Amino acid sequence: MAEKWIGVVGGVGPFAGIDLLGKIAAQTVANQDQDHLTVLNWSQPAKVVDRTEYLLGEVEENPAVALAAQVQQLAKMGAGVVGIPCNTAHAPRIFNQIRAELAAANCDVTLLHMIEEVGRFLQTHLPEVTQVGVLSTTGTYRAGVYVDVLGELGFTAVLPPLTLQTEKIHPAIYDPEYGIKACGVATAEAKANLQEGIVTLKTAGAEAIILGCTELPLAFTKPTAAGLPLIDPTLILARALIREANPTKSKEVIE
Amino acid sequence: MAEKWIGVVGGVGPFAGIDLLGKIAAQTVANQDQDHLTVLNWSQPAKVVDRTEYLLGEVEENPAVALAAQVQQLAKMGAGVVGIPCNTAHAPRIFNQIRAELAAANCDVTLLHMIEEVGRFLQTHLPEVTQVGVLSTTGTYRAGVYVDVLGELGFTAVLPPLTLQTEKIHPAIYDPEYGIKACGVATAEAKANLQEGIVTLKTAGAEAIILGCTELPLAFTKPTAAGLPLIDPTLILARALIREANPTKSKEVIE
Repeated sequence: MAEKWIGVVGGVGPFAGIDLLGKIAAQTVANQDQDHLTVLNWSQPAKVVDRTEYLLGEVEENPAVALAAQVQQLAKMGAGVVGIPCNTAHAPRIFNQIRAELAAANCDVTLLHMIEEVGRFLQTHLPEVTQVGVLSTTGTYRAGVYVDVLGELGFTAVLPPLTLQTEKIHPAIYDPEYGIKACGVATAEAKANLQEGIVTLKTAGAEAIILGCTELPLAFTKPTAAGLPLIDPTLILARALIREANPTKSKEVIE
Repeated sequence: MAEKWIGVVGGVGPFAGIDLLGKIAAQTVANQDQDHLTVLNWSQPAKVVDRTEYLLGEVEENPAVALAAQVQQLAKMGAGVVGIPCNTAHAPRIFNQIRAELAAANCDVTLLHMIEEVGRFLQTHLPEVTQVGVLSTTGTYRAGVYVDVLGELGFTAVLPPLTLQTEKIHPAIYDPEYGIKACGVATAEAKANLQEGIVTLKTAGAEAIILGCTELPLAFTKPTAAGLPLIDPTLILARALIREANPTKSKEVIE
């Protein structure tokens, strides 16, 4: 089977896109440059309205239109399998529209669904877990993205109380002064907010924590927090993209 | 003036390409995703023969042909300014051929010359420095890339003795067991080799050290080593790309 080229919609957000590219390279079996897969990245963030603002009704334009256009650009360049490293973009109101736009354009690229990949990962690698805590933007939170997708796979999603969500978790990502999107790194204040979120989710019964916004893995260097395994959807998406492009290039163990 | 799109030839090597993308994002004035520049990355490393092997006569194919084709793909996608984050690819035997291929194809994209950008950076930011140490692959070393370009700008390049170059510096990048290209991170052995190189160059009169292979910045987290300023060509290329795309988006101070 011919190797597929990987396409990445890299601007949502830019640091998350770069994190995905890094994880694709790190998870690829390679001893030299030439062993790495072909990866195309289309990062055009100015064209894509904020996914959370759309879900919360603050802007009318569905970001799906621009995202679908960028997936099509990647397909035109030769990508055979594409990933979008943005959890909020996987809310049904956005992701179903992307799929509809691609179908209308007869674009037959394989577009992976990051959240479904996370669900399958949990079934395979953490079969004893049933209650899964989710840290995310308020857009993902309100859209119930993880609640629905994980629910269909037999998991119960555990979310923070609304005030903790809006006053601590969302700002850890979005605050213009200390948020990860603005700073490109996790500040001490962002980390403290997230730690409080994890402890709260653990008390509420969570047995694992999904870092359900692609900026969040930037805040953690260890595989666990408060004794719970941390699940990184970006890493899972990276491995899924390699699997679809050429499964023989996928490292057997997560590194 | 319309903002130009940035194109990155990202596969030489893959981790260097990702490092460049990260530095472009980090050096951009932005408070939200939408403020970031459009950046397209074409990473197709399997098509590009090893630049050092070509310069050393170990392969016949000039990697310029594949590199020029990838620059053209980026131009076709809309990129207006392109960078190649590989020092060795800037050896005249390769880079002049890339320029010739682009001219023959009537491709009028602005292709930046990373080493010339480094020379201009030194003139502007370290005007008191005249002797510059260079750590690089043996391909860059033998091709005299930095010696020539810096020489034209009035600097003296200080290189390691040949045995140190071939037994310690090159392997820090290329060794299949502990080299940065194979590991994706700088191992303790790679770091020790490079530190030995820096001390040697300092003793030989170097007043600053150019990390003259795009994998080398991965080995250093501080701006100096052995008391000498470290010059990161990837960072300089990132800032040059932003300057050409839209100078108002460039952070005033290097971060």
